[in-house]
Amino acid sequence: MTRTLSSYVAGTWITPDGGEAVVSPVTGATICQVSTDGVDDGEAVRHAREVGGPALRALTFHQRAWLLKDLVKVIAAHKQDLYELSALSGATSKDAWVDVDGGMGAVATYSSQGRRFLPDAHVVVDGPVQPLSRDGSFAGVHVGSPKEGVAVQINAFNFPVWGSLEKLAPALLAGMPSIVKPATPTAYVAEALYRAIIDSGVLPEGAVQFIAGPVHDLFDHLDGQDLVGFTGSAATASHLRTHPAFTSRSAIFTAETDSLNSSILLPSGAEGAHLDRFVTEVATELTTKAGQRCTAIRRAFVPASHTDEVVTKLRAQLAEVVLGDPRVEGVTMGSLVSAGARAGVERTVEKLLPGARRVIGDEPLPLVGDVDDAAFMPPTVLLADDASRDEVHTLEPFGPVTTLIPYDTVDEAVALIRRGGGSLVASAFGPAGADDAIALFAGIAAHHGRLLFVDDAAAASQTGHGSPLPHLVHGGPGRAGGGEELGGLRAVHHHLQTTAVQGSPDQLTALTGRYVPGAARDTSGPHPFTKRFEELSIGDALITGEREVTLEDIEAFAALTGDTFYAHMDEVAAKASPIFEGRVAHGYLLVSAAAGLFVWPDPGPVLANVGLEDLQFAQPVYPGDRIHVRFTCKDKGSARDPDQGTVTWDVEVVNQRDEVVATYDVLTVVAR
Amino acid sequence: MTRTLSSYVAGTWITPDGGEAVVSPVTGATICQVSTDGVDDGEAVRHAREVGGPALRALTFHQRAWLLKDLVKVIAAHKQDLYELSALSGATSKDAWVDVDGGMGAVATYSSQGRRFLPDAHVVVDGPVQPLSRDGSFAGVHVGSPKEGVAVQINAFNFPVWGSLEKLAPALLAGMPSIVKPATPTAYVAEALYRAIIDSGVLPEGAVQFIAGPVHDLFDHLDGQDLVGFTGSAATASHLRTHPAFTSRSAIFTAETDSLNSSILLPSGAEGAHLDRFVTEVATELTTKAGQRCTAIRRAFVPASHTDEVVTKLRAQLAEVVLGDPRVEGVTMGSLVSAGARAGVERTVEKLLPGARRVIGDEPLPLVGDVDDAAFMPPTVLLADDASRDEVHTLEPFGPVTTLIPYDTVDEAVALIRRGGGSLVASAFGPAGADDAIALFAGIAAHHGRLLFVDDAAAASQTGHGSPLPHLVHGGPGRAGGGEELGGLRAVHHHLQTTAVQGSPDQLTALTGRYVPGAARDTSGPHPFTKRFEELSIGDALITGEREVTLEDIEAFAALTGDTFYAHMDEVAAKASPIFEGRVAHGYLLVSAAAGLFVWPDPGPVLANVGLEDLQFAQPVYPGDRIHVRFTCKDKGSARDPDQGTVTWDVEVVNQRDEVVATYDVLTVVAR
Repeated sequence: MTRTLSSYVAGTWITPDGGEAVVSPVTGATICQVSTDGVDDGEAVRHAREVGGPALRALTFHQRAWLLKDLVKVIAAHKQDLYELSALSGATSKDAWVDVDGGMGAVATYSSQGRRFLPDAHVVVDGPVQPLSRDGSFAGVHVGSPKEGVAVQINAFNFPVWGSLEKLAPALLAGMPSIVKPATPTAYVAEALYRAIIDSGVLPEGAVQFIAGPVHDLFDHLDGQDLVGFTGSAATASHLRTHPAFTSRSAIFTAETDSLNSSILLPSGAEGAHLDRFVTEVATELTTKAGQRCTAIRRAFVPASHTDEVVTKLRAQLAEVVLGDPRVEGVTMGSLVSAGARAGVERTVEKLLPGARRVIGDEPLPLVGDVDDAAFMPPTVLLADDASRDEVHTLEPFGPVTTLIPYDTVDEAVALIRRGGGSLVASAFGPAGADDAIALFAGIAAHHGRLLFVDDAAAASQTGHGSPLPHLVHGGPGRAGGGEELGGLRAVHHHLQTTAVQGSPDQLTALTGRYVPGAARDTSGPHPFTKRFEELSIGDALITGEREVTLEDIEAFAALTGDTFYAHMDEVAAKASPIFEGRVAHGYLLVSAAAGLFVWPDPGPVLANVGLEDLQFAQPVYPGDRIHVRFTCKDKGSARDPDQGTVTWDVEVVNQRDEVVATYDVLTVVAR
Repeated sequence: MTRTLSSYVAGTWITPDGGEAVVSPVTGATICQVSTDGVDDGEAVRHAREVGGPALRALTFHQRAWLLKDLVKVIAAHKQDLYELSALSGATSKDAWVDVDGGMGAVATYSSQGRRFLPDAHVVVDGPVQPLSRDGSFAGVHVGSPKEGVAVQINAFNFPVWGSLEKLAPALLAGMPSIVKPATPTAYVAEALYRAIIDSGVLPEGAVQFIAGPVHDLFDHLDGQDLVGFTGSAATASHLRTHPAFTSRSAIFTAETDSLNSSILLPSGAEGAHLDRFVTEVATELTTKAGQRCTAIRRAFVPASHTDEVVTKLRAQLAEVVLGDPRVEGVTMGSLVSAGARAGVERTVEKLLPGARRVIGDEPLPLVGDVDDAAFMPPTVLLADDASRDEVHTLEPFGPVTTLIPYDTVDEAVALIRRGGGSLVASAFGPAGADDAIALFAGIAAHHGRLLFVDDAAAASQTGHGSPLPHLVHGGPGRAGGGEELGGLRAVHHHLQTTAVQGSPDQLTALTGRYVPGAARDTSGPHPFTKRFEELSIGDALITGEREVTLEDIEAFAALTGDTFYAHMDEVAAKASPIFEGRVAHGYLLVSAAAGLFVWPDPGPVLANVGLEDLQFAQPVYPGDRIHVRFTCKDKGSARDPDQGTVTWDVEVVNQRDEVVATYDVLTVVAR
């Protein structure tokens, strides 16, 4: 008897007896059994809410980002195991690289984004402060707080590591505990991953729970603070969405489902290198993970005049494919996940054939290694004879199958691509800025979550039609499920409740931990530049002395910098402008003179001025005006380096009538 | 016989015979009938997709923003009619002001936000460009394109103008056509509004259609490019959400439903002015629109020690209420929308009474004017005897009813507030920065879409517990429906498909109409500052000559500005810093010298430098380094003034080794 996979719920590993057998599509041997007998879904939800959530929310965004960094190390230490288990599921080492290293990359990206762009705080201010009264006594700001429920992550079989980590990382960074449910056919890979993660003790207890198989009444326990991220078939998504958790209790359901993704060789790129790149991309997507990728190219659009050339070149490339046991050196393509999966793909191909014919893949390829042949399928290319039929735009063979669709005009191709009803991704091959590229973009952007354009410049560096990137949105409208994953911090914000907070500047500063202009300043301490990072408090401020801006200053500044714009130099011309009443000080002079007023000159904790943001010149400064500066510690941010932190300062430059003439944020690096 | 309301579908006003009678709750007379016999919902969807959508998408965001400005004028011209019709529904002129003027304000805000923050283009770039290769040849950016379907807007009866316009304005600005469905009891007010809008001809045909009553098979025609914005009861939302349009075809459904909103008098504010303001807020929310407001205060939390004082003061304030015909001078509170609505509120009050008792409103008030008394209800205050019961946290009397809930500690209040299961809004009264305010915020933020904090500073300027503002999110999690409306441009983005676009900088520039760093520059023309707004093209650029930055420059700059930070002035101290190798040029000197290099000094179309964004100093500049500037037209934006436009310039300051030392965007105002 093989072992049954374990689930981790409420702090305990549970290992039932028996269950559904999972067979390796490579060896035909049983790998494990899957059962969730004895798993109490309600207990998992309660544990997430009562233990995992509070523990994660006790940390700041930065602290959680550091946890993600530790998580990458844990996974790296178990990489070899994960590769070996993946091979049993039919994945080549290149496939496993996409899955395992890709997953680690996603976690690392979220760690880095969290430390760079989220605060070292428990809530995040989202967007600018909105003034709500003329006198500045009332304002509003959007604040993101972690949802207080659980993120349920239902994953697909094809990328058991990446597909899970790309959901887990944003949830952890946001501060939401997760319940992870893998797909049965590769649940043993996921189990190894989560055993490594959980046993490492890197995450607080309850931050992650793992249910290694079918859930029971999980959704009955969810409410408006919970969310479910689902990857899988459109039919399953459609069924799950009718559950009262979503329809009545406003739990959030996001889906990323299969879609009929397109790639197009543009008319402007129909020849030479563009065509070759297109062929290579189609071949790569056919063979990677044996085409079992929700982003794979299902419809490949070719200018009708070049169909024969594409078929010939594609046949030549695919002839190089070595199909067989992924553990054998030299094998470039593995099996489908099961014999049943292969049979399903073959059935779908049969349904496509009334409007198409098989031009590549009609003969079985020889198999390398001592393998069971039932789950292996050669790369298969169909050529559409009648692309007006629905099948090719609606039926997805989830395996190494693509259909070439000849077309005559870009408008025709656009109309056909849109018949997919919403897709995860489309790619286009041709030169930059061509009219057909622009027309394609206008015609299909609203129907896609991602578009890849490959021209000469990007040919060598492009990251692939099939590869979602952690910085960019993954998901698509309509048929693709309407969900949105990844996309940098966008995915984190899906785990936060956005709340509009209204109040006085003092109150908003106290609640958000970020200085809101108009709030009280503390000028009682020493010069803020003499304080170390950890000594600085939000609201620590300096009101500087005053300096006059003279005509001589303007002349000297112009001479030194070379900036002799007429509004500074020519009284008559300046007066004639619709904006100025006479010669004005350079904006850059004001900002420079402001620094002269607020800078503490001696060596101290402030190491450098690294940037400046949102500079607005509110009104002109004329010769004879006197300026001073209100300089206030606004925010303590980024922590890429344990010895330093970034401090943002709110700067107001004010004239002798107490009118604000310029506002901006200064970013400094401050030693700890 | 009264007339039957008309619907506007596919360019035609349709007026059926007969239908459901709508009775004025004030006069008891029949106002109109409501029927949608003969309205073809499928035709409306097709017309929106085939006529309205393309017409709106042919315009830019700015052009649509100007349409919204025209729309405000149209509504203003019909304001008197709308006020008069509103009075028939029981609304006082103050209620109508909230509805009609509030609605116009929302449209005006979207017009202004669109011109300020969206581009004069067909798609909007959302967020920064993400480098995706080390050599800069491949990058990604998120682009928002209008969804190509229809925005169906299902409105509630209580604010027939505002409630409709706050959904319509973001849809129009985004470029999506709308189908508007009012609630039957006040459909005559909405009909007057849409007759004015449609007959004005301000909007392109098909941009708005109006279905003045029950829809038939509307949802059967919706798919993944469509969205439905629903305001109404949780039960109806729950039912609608199970439709295959949403569960199978990924049409987007957002709901804003009733919720049990709270207001709390904090312990820190239990006395004096805070208590008085709290009482006034509760009284205002009870009487405004006769309490028929989805944001009204249903649960009012009072420190137990001050319950008697609150009841006494509330009774005194509410004794001033003049209930009656809203058309009669001096009336301060009108009727509920119907006799049935009043009966429903009374039934809900009965259900609340096991855990509470009626302390105000147990006697009918005298009614002013010759009115039917069946729909009038006095302001009613219950006092909870047992706040641990579910009813007060789950049952909403949608009328002039609130329940006072005495509490002892903030933790206790937080726990009770959360039992509402997610609400639109909560408000709190007490001083800024008090521990109890901070604890309340931490405890309830994730459960609310909006929080209002009223302290001394904001007391006079605060905009009210019950008033959503166009700049801030309206909607809440869980019981409140999980939707998000308003929130400035957030609501516009809900109508856009976000697509990650990957390609070379040249390709991304061509597709987005916005310069992406690394793309080709056009330096063949005259100095870009000599071109008028309409003559400038994205990519127009200047590569300046070089200048050396000398130690003398640094000395002179320090002397002129007063900025004598040691890293600029003291070789030994600078060397000792962990960042610099010796004395460095001031960052402000670089930016100023860069302006000296790129500025065209003579009078011309560039009127002023109004700001600067995202300045990053990438590496130090030492004495003897030589800098030059790459100055490129990046974006043509804001159009607040027809004679001028804002142009954003991409600036790269480069040293003699071609290393970028600083990057930023400069904003200028350029004449047309």
